[in-house]
Amino acid sequence: MAETRWLDDAEQRAWRGYLRMNTVLGAALSRQLQVDSTLSLPDFEVLVHLTDVEDERLRVSELARVMRWEKSRLSHQVTRMERRGLVAREECLSDGRGAFVVLTGAGRDAIEAAAPAHVDAVRRLFFDAITADDVDALAGISQRVIARVEANDVCPS
Amino acid sequence: MAETRWLDDAEQRAWRGYLRMNTVLGAALSRQLQVDSTLSLPDFEVLVHLTDVEDERLRVSELARVMRWEKSRLSHQVTRMERRGLVAREECLSDGRGAFVVLTGAGRDAIEAAAPAHVDAVRRLFFDAITADDVDALAGISQRVIARVEANDVCPS
Repeated sequence: MAETRWLDDAEQRAWRGYLRMNTVLGAALSRQLQVDSTLSLPDFEVLVHLTDVEDERLRVSELARVMRWEKSRLSHQVTRMERRGLVAREECLSDGRGAFVVLTGAGRDAIEAAAPAHVDAVRRLFFDAITADDVDALAGISQRVIARVEANDVCPS
Repeated sequence: MAETRWLDDAEQRAWRGYLRMNTVLGAALSRQLQVDSTLSLPDFEVLVHLTDVEDERLRVSELARVMRWEKSRLSHQVTRMERRGLVAREECLSDGRGAFVVLTGAGRDAIEAAAPAHVDAVRRLFFDAITADDVDALAGISQRVIARVEANDVCPS
């Protein structure tokens, strides 16, 4: 392996800042959902992915891939959500490619009820702290890093 | 509650991009550590926090607070690392404020062995994809968001 190119001071500051922001912001938003809604952050994330797609349904394997979760972990998550009526599993016998997870009416109600306070927290803790230029910079950074990771990835989304 | 200020298109793009970048980059770096080292991403994170402090030791409660983990989850993580010799627990009988987690020689060896390939991956997947201006922008964004979250937080780090 070639000699390691260690991070310089500016990179170190950016990388540590990025990791720290993820940690504190993720924890704060997770706590906000716990306090203000009936959903956990993973529940919320699953429901967002389902509301994003045309039929409000995704295969378990597809959802695991998009969320970058181990399939077994995602399957447990879906089972817990199914018990609470937030999603339903639909077997797809015809093609053998595994079950679908489908948004239910209760799931839609739950995410619609949780969304306003969640967006308020995202705005208060994140967008109100940064400038419009920062918003554009972050969108660009994210886009470039995602493209880079996916180009290096054996299982791109 | 006042009317929700939903995210506009630019904010939506930045927020979704940020979340997606976290997901794909976190998964890629986690996999990289699995392949190239004996450490998981949480192992690595615990060791980084210990190498960062003067005595290479932190109270379990302090480590949980800094990492924003539930104390019980962190305690299980530390127990697993202790069994592998990466850290040691030292009871502190004098003050009743709970045990310390201490970096061991094996822990230091493990993180030193893991660091070069991890930094290479961070550079390849992240820094090589963005510009020097992006690096400064991200450092600034992170700093402002962390300050905002911690000002709103009941348990700032």
